[in-house]
Amino acid sequence: MIKIGGNVIDQEDSLMAFLEEFASIKEKKILVHGGGKIASRLGEKLGIESKYIQGRRITDAPTLDLVTMVYGGLVNKKIVARLQAFSCNAIGLTGADANLLPAAKRPVKEIDYGFAGDIKPALVPVNNWKIFVDNDFVPVVAPLTHDGKGNMLNTNADTIASTVAVVLSAFYEVRLIYCFEKKGVLENVQDNNSVIRLIDKTSYRQLLAEEKLFEGIIPKIDNAFAAIDAGVHDVLIGDAKDLLQNITSQTNGTLIRS
Amino acid sequence: MIKIGGNVIDQEDSLMAFLEEFASIKEKKILVHGGGKIASRLGEKLGIESKYIQGRRITDAPTLDLVTMVYGGLVNKKIVARLQAFSCNAIGLTGADANLLPAAKRPVKEIDYGFAGDIKPALVPVNNWKIFVDNDFVPVVAPLTHDGKGNMLNTNADTIASTVAVVLSAFYEVRLIYCFEKKGVLENVQDNNSVIRLIDKTSYRQLLAEEKLFEGIIPKIDNAFAAIDAGVHDVLIGDAKDLLQNITSQTNGTLIRS
Repeated sequence: MIKIGGNVIDQEDSLMAFLEEFASIKEKKILVHGGGKIASRLGEKLGIESKYIQGRRITDAPTLDLVTMVYGGLVNKKIVARLQAFSCNAIGLTGADANLLPAAKRPVKEIDYGFAGDIKPALVPVNNWKIFVDNDFVPVVAPLTHDGKGNMLNTNADTIASTVAVVLSAFYEVRLIYCFEKKGVLENVQDNNSVIRLIDKTSYRQLLAEEKLFEGIIPKIDNAFAAIDAGVHDVLIGDAKDLLQNITSQTNGTLIRS
Repeated sequence: MIKIGGNVIDQEDSLMAFLEEFASIKEKKILVHGGGKIASRLGEKLGIESKYIQGRRITDAPTLDLVTMVYGGLVNKKIVARLQAFSCNAIGLTGADANLLPAAKRPVKEIDYGFAGDIKPALVPVNNWKIFVDNDFVPVVAPLTHDGKGNMLNTNADTIASTVAVVLSAFYEVRLIYCFEKKGVLENVQDNNSVIRLIDKTSYRQLLAEEKLFEGIIPKIDNAFAAIDAGVHDVLIGDAKDLLQNITSQTNGTLIRS
């Protein structure tokens, strides 16, 4: 289960290099992609403002249509067409397709996030996922879910990746891979080569005690351990450029395991 | 195999009524949809001109992105989300997904149609289609194909419907249903109630000899007989509003069979 974000998607050459590496992975695989900047750029042209409250995106109705078009249509199908050219039998999906990701509109409390979806993990139809995986289709998943009442919903790609990884871990040994802008968890945040190769619960406690970790990385590691505790075999995080090489033997990035 | 066009898609209430009827069909089913006017409207806002030569749409690169977003994203996923709400296990697909519709960019002769795709019927992977159909997924197909070299292509929805119907007719008894703006083939084009209930090859020759048919309908009937000669069981054409009622016993529209 591999998640890529905007930093990979927005650059044509980095995306192509990533997809070629991805296509060459022999194991069963799923790709979850974020949105990238194209939705904001297109939204500007259409007069759809990007709204944020406390740093979090608000999905109003025009924004929902925008992300459904851009993430579920343009970005998703471009990735699929290119993977097909690399002989990878990709199939582009959202959480509405085959009911893959049932969700509920986030309740309005202090903030109304609009059409933001919280996945209902217990309702994820694992047999539908298995049909794709066992028939050697390669799901390419856009960050969209649905509420079962006819509405699409906008959902964080990291959350989709970890939720599906956990659900599938009942049937497969799942490695969850997060591609982000750094080479991994860094011992010195200024030095992109100070990657910590392996983190387990003991060494994580020690790193926290020594206050060595960059604050922004802590929630990612916490989420990784949560996924591992729920059944995922291990979690690999690092830069898309070098993460996929020797994907199974793990020579790059940071491997997190219990 | 049911094809709906813009006249159904553009009106919210007619689309909802159609989808509810469609969801209630008990037989295995596939929906192919056209685009509707929303792509042109959105294109205007984005400064993408709709170009036509001799009445045929030209798909330049910005138009290809536009139809990939709108047909493959917005329209397709809205239909899927709504069908899911009617307990129909819809899955939205383009011809790139699972390589369902391999095509070639139309060669440039007198006219350069741009990114228009002609399907290669012999390469359509019928086993991939069967995986969906046999697992009771309901494919909802956008009018897009791909060239196997990484590019999406724009393809006529009628052609997709008849091509897939023919391919699947090797394994299933296929009824091909075209929804359009009239109640069926009319004996008197001024009178929407003068529907000819049944056309076979003998009665078609007679209708042609008597010059009774509206010119625009003749290519549709010719295409219907071509599909039947290639294996499709029968073809039903008429208005979406009343076509789906009693779909198997055929009480409305025009049924064409050999």
